[in-house]
Amino acid sequence: MKQYQELSPSPRTIMTPGPVEVDPRVLRALSYPILGQFDPEFTALMNDTMEMLRLLFRTDNQWAFPVDGTSRSGIEAVLTSLIEPGEKALVPIYGRFGHLLYEIAERCGAEVIAVEKEWGGVFDPEEVIAVIRREKPALVLIVHGETSTGRMQPLQEIGKVCRELGVLFVVDAVATIGGVPVETDAWHIDAVIGGTQKCLSVPSGMAPITYNDIAERKITARKKVERGLRTPGGEDWDKAARPAIQSNYFDISQLQDYWGPARLNHHTEMTSMLYGLREGLRLVLAEGLDERFARHRLHEAALVAGIEAMGLPLYGDPACKLPVVTCVAIPEGMDGDLVRSMLLHQFGIEIASSFGVLKGRIWRIGTMGYSCNQKNVLHLLGAFEAVLIRQGASLKAGAGVQAALDVYENKSRRE
Amino acid sequence: MKQYQELSPSPRTIMTPGPVEVDPRVLRALSYPILGQFDPEFTALMNDTMEMLRLLFRTDNQWAFPVDGTSRSGIEAVLTSLIEPGEKALVPIYGRFGHLLYEIAERCGAEVIAVEKEWGGVFDPEEVIAVIRREKPALVLIVHGETSTGRMQPLQEIGKVCRELGVLFVVDAVATIGGVPVETDAWHIDAVIGGTQKCLSVPSGMAPITYNDIAERKITARKKVERGLRTPGGEDWDKAARPAIQSNYFDISQLQDYWGPARLNHHTEMTSMLYGLREGLRLVLAEGLDERFARHRLHEAALVAGIEAMGLPLYGDPACKLPVVTCVAIPEGMDGDLVRSMLLHQFGIEIASSFGVLKGRIWRIGTMGYSCNQKNVLHLLGAFEAVLIRQGASLKAGAGVQAALDVYENKSRRE
Repeated sequence: MKQYQELSPSPRTIMTPGPVEVDPRVLRALSYPILGQFDPEFTALMNDTMEMLRLLFRTDNQWAFPVDGTSRSGIEAVLTSLIEPGEKALVPIYGRFGHLLYEIAERCGAEVIAVEKEWGGVFDPEEVIAVIRREKPALVLIVHGETSTGRMQPLQEIGKVCRELGVLFVVDAVATIGGVPVETDAWHIDAVIGGTQKCLSVPSGMAPITYNDIAERKITARKKVERGLRTPGGEDWDKAARPAIQSNYFDISQLQDYWGPARLNHHTEMTSMLYGLREGLRLVLAEGLDERFARHRLHEAALVAGIEAMGLPLYGDPACKLPVVTCVAIPEGMDGDLVRSMLLHQFGIEIASSFGVLKGRIWRIGTMGYSCNQKNVLHLLGAFEAVLIRQGASLKAGAGVQAALDVYENKSRRE
Repeated sequence: MKQYQELSPSPRTIMTPGPVEVDPRVLRALSYPILGQFDPEFTALMNDTMEMLRLLFRTDNQWAFPVDGTSRSGIEAVLTSLIEPGEKALVPIYGRFGHLLYEIAERCGAEVIAVEKEWGGVFDPEEVIAVIRREKPALVLIVHGETSTGRMQPLQEIGKVCRELGVLFVVDAVATIGGVPVETDAWHIDAVIGGTQKCLSVPSGMAPITYNDIAERKITARKKVERGLRTPGGEDWDKAARPAIQSNYFDISQLQDYWGPARLNHHTEMTSMLYGLREGLRLVLAEGLDERFARHRLHEAALVAGIEAMGLPLYGDPACKLPVVTCVAIPEGMDGDLVRSMLLHQFGIEIASSFGVLKGRIWRIGTMGYSCNQKNVLHLLGAFEAVLIRQGASLKAGAGVQAALDVYENKSRRE
């Protein structure tokens, strides 16, 4: 039989829009011996996690917990639990992940209405509001930070109007949570989905969500107790007032009974991932959310200064740049994938390409979570310059790193 | 702000039907720095995992990979991808997890036909075959090892008839994979779902599945390329020949494009969990599947000998006992939960209660994976005796551990 080697991953500087490097303290947490899912010590850790998620999402919502799956599992759980077949859902799309919201909403049976914005920009909130007033959807589904194009959509005005009109406002904050402010309550967001493997720097595998009472009422009206747990003939046998949720795994009415004091058995909670998420949240809150956002802004500034000093044009409308992703236009005639491959294999640095119409046209560089630090930014700029020179680009050697150093030194002087 | 403590889980001997203790080598693998999802080193680990899963499932199937979620995510992925709305699905139910198959199949839009067997036994294969011939379902969905009752269903004859009649045969082997033989090809199973947190001793969080060409043809006929990845107006725009799969996250036609050479972006693979699964599989294959099954039989024998020597009756039909779960009838007048609580808090040992009609009537003791060892069995028997005496039971002190020691010594003498 073939002998499989012991695991031995090469060291990597991961500067993509996720997954990014994981704090060693989170990695250590993953390696602790497990507890049973109903062990009181473990349910206490689940409760800690809920409390910390409320702080992260800046919400007073009762419900804030992870869905057990990658980020899109959280999106699907929220959409499939909230959307009743035939309901109208408006999806403003300005990049790849808007299309994903459309796709999932469609599979949930929604009548989906898309408005699209050319990639590289975002919507003026008034444009979206006009469509909401005209179409009167039951829900608006939108991406906060679109990693495919590196743009960020302002949400506050849209949320305000949704609340006034009784439209459910659902936000995909997978890319932004923990890196830039996500103000669940202040922006009147009814349900938010976050991601772990980006600005939280926890490995992919859980999707933190939160939702308010308005969303909860809609979800619990669709509740159906699981067959194996019902009392035959009892009042829980078949009592859903509204069309049942089409997924069992993503049925939030069941998930909240598992995360709540009832602790009604659903899935077997992912112990090690929960350890990791709890530790990741602990580190985020210990750093302080505002301090963390400022850190992301600082390293973005240094990276952007370096890229511009190298003479490389940034992609997209700067007014709506997503602070944690920087998109760089690939110079005419240069093979973007060859540059990425050389960065990876010679320098151990990973950056990303993009999707669809942007494939081959931009590189995407993430400055997220634990990966978002001075060492990484300077290492990347130096290596990037070297690879570009090696690929025949003519640029002013040394300028990128010097410009980034200026940003860091100016910051130190101000303090 | 509240200070959250550093993680510090108490040591536990976990003798439940899952999740069970994790091999320290798997825990170590979880703590390794991550790689990007399209890093060639990482995709090589994904390929290793697929190869090892084929060996685990004893199959020549091309497709064997984990679904990113807990065990029931694997069940839902297989059912939602295979069941077209309106199709007839037969579910023979002999415990709680049969009801789960019914529930999920129903949510997938199947016309579900259940046949039920009183808990504590399993079906004579001929009974199931008679219903198959009468009802002519499109699929048969069945649990291999039912942890709620500690029973195991023979599958080979049912599989043979399903294949002859062109009925898809889908098996939930969550509890059995890696602990008792699961012969995917020899038993003519079209799709199997395994669990990580039981006999594989990898933390909960992934659900290995495998399916054959027959299942694949059905799934790919329902394939729809994801909106954000399609060529507008191109031939992939809307080409599904059959009703589309109602989930995006669980759409196996997309998952296999991600796990296959196309590597078409879907979710972000769970890096750390994949490290853990790969390492867990490596350890299973290094031990040898047959050796591993024999180990599970040995410790079951020792546990059963000990329980019986203590004078406690086992629950259920011994002819179909699930080797990795031993169900013990709670003596009349004894508070089963108090016993479990004392075992946990005084001895650091976790055993399980049960569900539905068996709640308060049986304890369930797992001997699975890394937890299935002599130290654990002897520790449990000694502690169990002590707690029962403490709770007023009259039993012959010392007999349980002595009986288990006899089993171990007889085994040593035979070798």
